[in-house]
Amino acid sequence: MARTDPDISPAPPATERGRRTRRKLLDAATIEFGERGFHEASIASITRRAGVALGSFYTYFGSKEAIFRDLVRDLSEGVRQAAAQSLAERELDALETERAALAAFLAFAREHKEIYRIIDESEFVDPESYRLHYEKTAERILGRLRAGAAAGQLRGDLDEAHAWAIMGMNVFLGLRYAVWSKGEEDRPEHAAQAAATILSEGIGPSDA
Amino acid sequence: MARTDPDISPAPPATERGRRTRRKLLDAATIEFGERGFHEASIASITRRAGVALGSFYTYFGSKEAIFRDLVRDLSEGVRQAAAQSLAERELDALETERAALAAFLAFAREHKEIYRIIDESEFVDPESYRLHYEKTAERILGRLRAGAAAGQLRGDLDEAHAWAIMGMNVFLGLRYAVWSKGEEDRPEHAAQAAATILSEGIGPSDA
Repeated sequence: MARTDPDISPAPPATERGRRTRRKLLDAATIEFGERGFHEASIASITRRAGVALGSFYTYFGSKEAIFRDLVRDLSEGVRQAAAQSLAERELDALETERAALAAFLAFAREHKEIYRIIDESEFVDPESYRLHYEKTAERILGRLRAGAAAGQLRGDLDEAHAWAIMGMNVFLGLRYAVWSKGEEDRPEHAAQAAATILSEGIGPSDA
Repeated sequence: MARTDPDISPAPPATERGRRTRRKLLDAATIEFGERGFHEASIASITRRAGVALGSFYTYFGSKEAIFRDLVRDLSEGVRQAAAQSLAERELDALETERAALAAFLAFAREHKEIYRIIDESEFVDPESYRLHYEKTAERILGRLRAGAAAGQLRGDLDEAHAWAIMGMNVFLGLRYAVWSKGEEDRPEHAAQAAATILSEGIGPSDA
């Protein structure tokens, strides 16, 4: 066996300076993969964008595949943190929590429009990361639904299927209102409001 | 200008036999692109799978890109027809209609698991078809929501955002319960039921 596996990145840097360089490379990779796609992207272009010497790349990542995989997990973690931070800011009931989580995701997607292209491309470049991203996201939503049910704020029969349904709503509202937004009239708040009313009352007639 | 553009397929065949051969090539392309992805797929392998002479391919399609694009539109039309047929079978109210449309989509996705990979890959190979697929699907859902609202069976304020939210639910329930189904316990009927209760009453406590 070779000592290094190009598919596995070296251990994370131990110094603050090393962490900053690794972060710069991940940010440059976000733009490179987002703009050019995996196949057209190159390590040379990533290091150039990051202002880092080409040789230093391999201190942090084993290969183009390895940085792509680490980036998908980094973006997935970014999605998680964006919601977590927003939810930690105040005390919310379960329905308000879902609305705040979606609003945080829409804001994150507006700031990081590349995220869709990169996560979508991982289905082909790194299927395991693709699957992990959605499985973990659905698990987090299910955890929130169960907490809400335990608090008597949500129905008691919510399960994995409800979590996947909510995740799908959020992903497609993000695609339409953050990535494909057609301008000012496509306000993300409107999308968040639509999803919130579906979750609070469904789409049946209001006097039902 | 050249007489033929390889990105544009020739006019559809006028004879029944021609239509059957074109259909065979599209079905073979579904398997080829679904199993190998666009880049690895080859015209030679598509014609071999279809049992059609290599040279005949160009009677029906201008290039690998052209058959891929025609296939995405063909699958998109298949999704539309699956729902339309199911809805034409009986008289349903608006909420039952959404449930039946999702059930028909889940059944179609189970029978054509390649559809996810092919439509997802069109984001990279043929972005216009990708976008068209979702825009048209959302438009159809919005048409149903408006008809339901006009009949007093749905809320009057439903709009494009609600249609995209419902489409997202359906796409992700299909991914989880048709494509990534883990076995017998992952019944598509359960996913359809979860979506139906979200649309009929939301996820709040049942005695709210």
